[in-house]
Amino acid sequence: MRIACKVAYEGTGYSGYQVQPGKRTIQAEIELALSKMHKGTFIRIASSGRTDSFVHAKGQVFHFDTNMQISEERWTKALNALLPEDIQLLATKIAPSDFHARYSAKKKQYIYRVLARKERDVFRRNQTYHVPTPLQLDLMREASQSLLGTHDFSSFCAANTSVVDKVRTIETLDIQKVDDEIHFTVEGSGFLYNMVRIIVGTLIEVGTGKRKPSEVREILEERDRTEAGKTAPGHGLYLNKVSYEEIYF
Amino acid sequence: MRIACKVAYEGTGYSGYQVQPGKRTIQAEIELALSKMHKGTFIRIASSGRTDSFVHAKGQVFHFDTNMQISEERWTKALNALLPEDIQLLATKIAPSDFHARYSAKKKQYIYRVLARKERDVFRRNQTYHVPTPLQLDLMREASQSLLGTHDFSSFCAANTSVVDKVRTIETLDIQKVDDEIHFTVEGSGFLYNMVRIIVGTLIEVGTGKRKPSEVREILEERDRTEAGKTAPGHGLYLNKVSYEEIYF
Repeated sequence: MRIACKVAYEGTGYSGYQVQPGKRTIQAEIELALSKMHKGTFIRIASSGRTDSFVHAKGQVFHFDTNMQISEERWTKALNALLPEDIQLLATKIAPSDFHARYSAKKKQYIYRVLARKERDVFRRNQTYHVPTPLQLDLMREASQSLLGTHDFSSFCAANTSVVDKVRTIETLDIQKVDDEIHFTVEGSGFLYNMVRIIVGTLIEVGTGKRKPSEVREILEERDRTEAGKTAPGHGLYLNKVSYEEIYF
Repeated sequence: MRIACKVAYEGTGYSGYQVQPGKRTIQAEIELALSKMHKGTFIRIASSGRTDSFVHAKGQVFHFDTNMQISEERWTKALNALLPEDIQLLATKIAPSDFHARYSAKKKQYIYRVLARKERDVFRRNQTYHVPTPLQLDLMREASQSLLGTHDFSSFCAANTSVVDKVRTIETLDIQKVDDEIHFTVEGSGFLYNMVRIIVGTLIEVGTGKRKPSEVREILEERDRTEAGKTAPGHGLYLNKVSYEEIYF
């Protein structure tokens, strides 16, 4: 039986999602909890994709196969009892046998939170990226228009990637002021490595006046990572939602 | 010259406010930063009062004496540059020479945050106390009326205290629902050890129906710690504001 789970985690205490020997990772913690439930039999999980060190999730999805006959509610409860307090199972669904958390994903939504004020905030230091320089929303919004739709995003992809096809589609790039934060919401069918963080880092450089909004289209056309802005740090990024046709969380 | 500072901190990573050998404490971090500014001369600070392990502050106040001639704004900036990221100086004031952060304090305000929903929240696990049982606001408000005013709060004071006079005055005890949280705001001229946390712990027992609202008056009259409810955990508590006549933050 194939089981799909939606999970939230605070990435602060982890070396990212993916298992790495000797490091504390989200995947390893979940697999440990599942293996305990299966009386020591190792259970491998597959997620919608990795998240980096310090990156958070409010709606990461993973799947695994099991012979255990447990209701959806019981899976959620039993796993939560075994997981550390910074990882939280939000929902469990019995999935079709050909469901795959990564390959069945239709859409992903990321949110990037910037603390947009002069003073830092001790209570949000791990959950937002603090930009003390004033950010001009209208300029960032103007610049973001160039990124909407289907493009070769080579300029917005970490240089050290093995992916060949760098054409992706951004369906939504929304920038909103929420109290003293600015939230970037980015939706698309798939993302390259560090793509959201490089987009946000570049838009921030537009917002502070370091770059013109029109430069973003030029950066895109160059297909060269060195043309774009800095990669915004991981701790402002949230994998917010992964959408599927087969199951609805 | 006497200097007063308002400081915020997230208490999660600390063994409380007060210096303890071999432990990471708020006071030790601030004194270390100040001593660095004074070229190695040790500077002792005095605060409005201790806070326990995991307890946070949004408006703790301390004072110290110095020969350095620096503007208020420069003190804030220089100290923040030397403090760890979970301690943040909010403001500095040049104070009268007889000002004392503890003895000059006229009023203290604490806020206690309860996460009042079934599911936990990974992002607020260190910043709220999670109570999954439904809480009845009206019952807690009714019970809180008995605590207003001047009383002997022996029943709401940790048993292991050396303080003799346990008469204190609570001026405000406000209970508000804020989204999925319940915030207890408690104001008074002074508080006994663990007093706010025992009050909140007892009111929560009223809110879940474990105790009747009328019991709170009886508990108060007993003057016996064992009559009151459990001490609510430190990580939901915030020292929000300390008020003085001499200076205004």
